[in-house]
Amino acid sequence: MALIVHKYGGTSMGSPERIRNVAKRVAKWARAGHQLVVVPSAMSGETNRLLGLAKELQPALVDDAALRELDMIAATGEQVSVGLLALALQAEGQPAVSYSGWQVPITTDSAYTKARIASIDDQRVRADLSAGRVVVITGFQGVDALGSVTTLGRGGSDTSAVAVAAAMQAAECLIYTDVDGVYTTDPRVVPEAKRLGTISFEEMLEMASLGSKVLQIRSVEFAGKYRVKLRVLSSFTPWDIAIDEEAQSGTLITFEEDEKMEQAVVSGIAFNRDEAKITVVGVPDTPGIAFKILGAVAAANIDVDVIVQNMSHDGRTDFSFTVHRNDYARTMALLKSDVLQLTGAADLIGDAKICKVSIVGIGMKSHVGVASTMFRTLSEEGINIQMITTSEIKTSVVIDEKYMELAVRALHRAFGLDAPSDAA
Amino acid sequence: MALIVHKYGGTSMGSPERIRNVAKRVAKWARAGHQLVVVPSAMSGETNRLLGLAKELQPALVDDAALRELDMIAATGEQVSVGLLALALQAEGQPAVSYSGWQVPITTDSAYTKARIASIDDQRVRADLSAGRVVVITGFQGVDALGSVTTLGRGGSDTSAVAVAAAMQAAECLIYTDVDGVYTTDPRVVPEAKRLGTISFEEMLEMASLGSKVLQIRSVEFAGKYRVKLRVLSSFTPWDIAIDEEAQSGTLITFEEDEKMEQAVVSGIAFNRDEAKITVVGVPDTPGIAFKILGAVAAANIDVDVIVQNMSHDGRTDFSFTVHRNDYARTMALLKSDVLQLTGAADLIGDAKICKVSIVGIGMKSHVGVASTMFRTLSEEGINIQMITTSEIKTSVVIDEKYMELAVRALHRAFGLDAPSDAA
Repeated sequence: MALIVHKYGGTSMGSPERIRNVAKRVAKWARAGHQLVVVPSAMSGETNRLLGLAKELQPALVDDAALRELDMIAATGEQVSVGLLALALQAEGQPAVSYSGWQVPITTDSAYTKARIASIDDQRVRADLSAGRVVVITGFQGVDALGSVTTLGRGGSDTSAVAVAAAMQAAECLIYTDVDGVYTTDPRVVPEAKRLGTISFEEMLEMASLGSKVLQIRSVEFAGKYRVKLRVLSSFTPWDIAIDEEAQSGTLITFEEDEKMEQAVVSGIAFNRDEAKITVVGVPDTPGIAFKILGAVAAANIDVDVIVQNMSHDGRTDFSFTVHRNDYARTMALLKSDVLQLTGAADLIGDAKICKVSIVGIGMKSHVGVASTMFRTLSEEGINIQMITTSEIKTSVVIDEKYMELAVRALHRAFGLDAPSDAA
Repeated sequence: MALIVHKYGGTSMGSPERIRNVAKRVAKWARAGHQLVVVPSAMSGETNRLLGLAKELQPALVDDAALRELDMIAATGEQVSVGLLALALQAEGQPAVSYSGWQVPITTDSAYTKARIASIDDQRVRADLSAGRVVVITGFQGVDALGSVTTLGRGGSDTSAVAVAAAMQAAECLIYTDVDGVYTTDPRVVPEAKRLGTISFEEMLEMASLGSKVLQIRSVEFAGKYRVKLRVLSSFTPWDIAIDEEAQSGTLITFEEDEKMEQAVVSGIAFNRDEAKITVVGVPDTPGIAFKILGAVAAANIDVDVIVQNMSHDGRTDFSFTVHRNDYARTMALLKSDVLQLTGAADLIGDAKICKVSIVGIGMKSHVGVASTMFRTLSEEGINIQMITTSEIKTSVVIDEKYMELAVRALHRAFGLDAPSDAA
């Protein structure tokens, strides 16, 4: 008997048949005595269809006036979803009512297409819950101080669900998706990958930002800030499985560093091959050199991920960093035209065929030798490490792209993630 | 330099290319120095698509909770339209902003799917107009006192446009549609039919309710009540025709009974074959008999149109009326099972193969002999009149369906509508 927030992704809402299944599942929870707030995404494909129409009429879509209209258009996808889900719930005999972001209201700033939630007024929603209704709220959107519709950007429905859960102090926020939880690594690369019963908030942040696409990273940050108990689980289990079983399925993102978590030093292996490496060779090792290089890159609105600068020899050093592979050619051109002369560097070397592999684990904080186990494992497989970065709970290496699968499998084994685990 | 309201139907908004054309036309008016409020419908087909989805999830859709969700869903069609049109206007270099009904706000009662407008707050719209922006407002919808989205029912965008024009005391409300005005009769039946340069509000009401589908009848009533100058014109003329020419095109619905209107006794011939005739034969001519028959029909939620009761012979009379052809079988079954015994009538005769032909003209008020000209014309063509009803400005007859075209053509000629006219 608790207040629970459910969030369903676009695939789960993809057809009337699937919406009916969502309704049956939600109605089951309501019948069990819980108060339910449900945040569905737009039907899959709908947001792209709407944005496509908008781009046909104004290809550039740069200024605020245009972005405001874009939000007006895109927000309708979720409005249709909440109405349809409320109708499906009513057809199941479950009283339900839908609200758009502006009706709750969910107030945001005016940064159209990437707005941030400022506040949520839960008075109206609570009244409905008390009256026995399931409340279905549009994800992905809110309303600004001027009364204009805003959207939170792609994946924003996760953030909406977590924000509503935070504002209403929900017992738990269940994110129903097309995977059944968070894995130690991608099962397509390592068939032995296991679903984690729990993962800490910090680890989830690292896993999410390192390429595990289960949860939108802003929603994880939000959950961390407001201590929302978050669970990722599958929307494709039969809707009528026992509620106790369902409530324990998937992966719980937790904030308590309990004993169980201490057991696993490394919780998962993340990787991505979206990056490219660039090295400015033989830069004079003088103050301000990093800014001269990266300032030009940032001015071109290019995001930099890993940055490494080694010790200098003879007053010169090599400066390396990675950018998204889509920005690689542009970055190289930029550096060739301006930065080489400006810095007096000897050469510029680029490599788009790299990948980043990371071990993530909150246990690393209190365990020594984790990074050295990583390096030894890669060395035993004959894999050369090109760059290294570390944080408190992760260690990332950049290696040749062709070794990616080999590295991930070896590390997965080396850190004991292949073994059967007691995780639910 | 006036405040003008434009309304564009779903066909005019049917594709990005057509929306671009609407934008070019609106921008032309704005460049000429006018303040423009534009009310577009949903893209053609969109409302049906949305209602189809809703019906898949809840086929009955009867109670208020369901109808509220239906409105939530259906309203998105127009929200997409206003956003797209605003983007198209901006792309033409014309500043523009869109508003949903709740943002204006357009306040309505809570009769979901058929709400009525209570008030319109034009403060926000006026501020935008003063700032040089075209304001694009969703048709078909508003918001009730509880903050729920409501829709005005099919064709409601016409009513929205007229209501906005009334609230803002616009100089004129231009209804752009896929026909180029109101005709003396349907040109598919009478090739000589002429477009009317002007038509009186009362005539338009009769023409609209008698089957001329140019304008939604509620919008005409609204225009009459608030004296909104209304013009129906084509959205398929080239967008760049001279603004003076465009402003004089189509048909003006007017409230002044000027000399020109006095000239034409009959303005148009309306007709429909959607009705069926039912005669209860040999009813005892006692008080309350009409109620006994029509009370049962009304209780079954069946609309009755023409009603005729003749003089009685030997204490018995024949009672005839028409219903929509879709309700014909149901009405006959109902009367057979209950009403015959109840009234002691001798027999029940039905005929679905009828049509109703009407002459409409505000000049009929002050001209005698109009009805007799009608009857003589039909008689000369050998057409038997089955029922007759009259109002101040129209005379309708029910005849055999097979004579419909013949009757309409003969009447069109008899009342001088074939002749060249001075109407613009």
